[in-house]
Amino acid sequence: MTRSPEDPILLTPGPLTTAIETRRAMLRDWGSRDRAFIAMTAELRQRLLDVAHGGTSHVAIPLQGSGTFIVEAAIATLLRPADKLLVLVNGAYGERMVEIARRLGRSVEALRWPEDRPVDPAKLDRALAADPKITHIALVHCETTSGLLNPLEPVAEVVADHGRALILDAMSSFGVLPIDLSTTKVAAVLASSNKGLEGVPGLGFALVERATIVAAKGNSPSLSFDLHDQWRGFEGNGQWRFTPPVQVVAALVEALRLLEAEGGAPARLRRYQDNFDTLAEGMARLGFHLFLDPEEQAPIIATFHPLDDPHFAFDRFYTALAARGFLIYPGKLTKAESFRIGCIGALGRADFEALLVAVEEALGELRR
Amino acid sequence: MTRSPEDPILLTPGPLTTAIETRRAMLRDWGSRDRAFIAMTAELRQRLLDVAHGGTSHVAIPLQGSGTFIVEAAIATLLRPADKLLVLVNGAYGERMVEIARRLGRSVEALRWPEDRPVDPAKLDRALAADPKITHIALVHCETTSGLLNPLEPVAEVVADHGRALILDAMSSFGVLPIDLSTTKVAAVLASSNKGLEGVPGLGFALVERATIVAAKGNSPSLSFDLHDQWRGFEGNGQWRFTPPVQVVAALVEALRLLEAEGGAPARLRRYQDNFDTLAEGMARLGFHLFLDPEEQAPIIATFHPLDDPHFAFDRFYTALAARGFLIYPGKLTKAESFRIGCIGALGRADFEALLVAVEEALGELRR
Repeated sequence: MTRSPEDPILLTPGPLTTAIETRRAMLRDWGSRDRAFIAMTAELRQRLLDVAHGGTSHVAIPLQGSGTFIVEAAIATLLRPADKLLVLVNGAYGERMVEIARRLGRSVEALRWPEDRPVDPAKLDRALAADPKITHIALVHCETTSGLLNPLEPVAEVVADHGRALILDAMSSFGVLPIDLSTTKVAAVLASSNKGLEGVPGLGFALVERATIVAAKGNSPSLSFDLHDQWRGFEGNGQWRFTPPVQVVAALVEALRLLEAEGGAPARLRRYQDNFDTLAEGMARLGFHLFLDPEEQAPIIATFHPLDDPHFAFDRFYTALAARGFLIYPGKLTKAESFRIGCIGALGRADFEALLVAVEEALGELRR
Repeated sequence: MTRSPEDPILLTPGPLTTAIETRRAMLRDWGSRDRAFIAMTAELRQRLLDVAHGGTSHVAIPLQGSGTFIVEAAIATLLRPADKLLVLVNGAYGERMVEIARRLGRSVEALRWPEDRPVDPAKLDRALAADPKITHIALVHCETTSGLLNPLEPVAEVVADHGRALILDAMSSFGVLPIDLSTTKVAAVLASSNKGLEGVPGLGFALVERATIVAAKGNSPSLSFDLHDQWRGFEGNGQWRFTPPVQVVAALVEALRLLEAEGGAPARLRRYQDNFDTLAEGMARLGFHLFLDPEEQAPIIATFHPLDDPHFAFDRFYTALAARGFLIYPGKLTKAESFRIGCIGALGRADFEALLVAVEEALGELRR
């Protein structure tokens, strides 16, 4: 693969580097109400369910827009006005769910942990025992803020034990980390086209329990974000209610075929783990420290402390890497200075080895 | 140009046939927070303003998603809870605005006309005189339901005379029919990437008066649809608040460059008018009648009555044309059976002459 500042590798949490086959799938036009596109939409919805083994229990509801849109749509659609949401927060994406619910006028509370600590199911258990008014619990599977992995199965078990409903933001974990809807009780899984699935941005989707979406009729104050109506549209005539981003859909279907060809989520996780390990070891050699303890770290995105060196400044480091064809990502932690390097996308070990050479060169430039 | 059932011409109101240069602009990846993409976003926003001569008075606020999303975002953001919207309705898109406002809990009323009659400014004048509580008026410039053109300037004048604010849904007219924000008073113009601008679907945008968007802080019950916050994001660091569909943005910027190269909206209107005239004359020869009177007809989309022939059935007609590489569009009228043929997209007279040959062949097939 050629690398140049004009066609850089994206080491970002999405949009990320996609396969050229995925981008080439966007080279044609589709009539959004034509049979060919209806068939493509059906393939999309089936493949999304298959990734999480949700075919018998859940329905797939893709939605136009960014990941935040599908999160808002799920909250708007699944909570009735009298319901109450508890968000488990240890990063910016958890906080965003609190804000979304608050703005929509839904009753919402947060349980908070530091940005380097996973959600604690025992604390959740006590909170649910203490407040029977909580109907829904929201969890961010992998917090892109830090790269931290939250414990999905133990949280799902506590939520199920209390007879409440779990909304899982799987934005950066879907298609990579294990999510098995046939064994883990989740009312709705939310994710987007442009992270672990390695599609281009422009689509989110929800996998919702069939009984849950049936019961959600009339809840949403938003026409655009009404996932019940969106689902009924697909079930009715196979079409999208409102104009879909046809090329983005085509790219995601191609990306899902590539995921299957690679060996599914387990194979993708192995590749990302290898990317992460290559990166972490190389960066350690160059003096960089990871923000998270290894046991909390998902191999999705790595957060590093700035180098303890008076010559190091993130802006100059970014620019020096960009000039070498590598785009990294600023930090998003509230309390500590940091930067991030994504391990996801159509990238392998050789790309990270090339990155490490570029990092070493960039550091030399900064120290000159 | 080659035409095949696998790569058809879209004669639809969008998604439509785009130029291959526009689709090729999607062949690379962009980091959404990188300088190259920030520059592309700035070019997009400037070009959108330039199309409507809004550079000194308005700001451009692109938003992820379909055209309906930007309509909902504008209603959610521009109306305060105590405001009242009057929608001028003569088709499905006007009705949709009523439903959006009603769902959001905003006070809303409709003035209605038949689907083949334009909005009457005198009736609007009387309605505004009678109800001082109406703060905003919504008009659909070209009703895609029928292809009807509503009288923008006279309506804008009445609204301005009463000191109210006009929200213009210019979804299928923007970039084609004259909209001059330096002479016509419009608080917000709404449109999308995939109609007259000939981009691919996945983006809407609002051109909003600067004072109007400044005053709209805190109105929106939706985080995703808060156009004030979206605008502040662009003004702050040039970036999108939430992940943008980077390839769709790149395609739209390329499409806007092609629009300029063609000679802007006046040149595009001439081409579409020629497409429409070629279509209308040819279809008349084959026995088809237009739904609208010529003086109400915009050269954007043509609605035809079904052929008065016992052999004619829309489904079979559609299939016969699709087999020849032409996708047309079903009707959306509430009272009359109809079908539609779009005149917009990267198409010229030769494409419509080829279509007419295919229509004649298809009719022969139906009568066989």
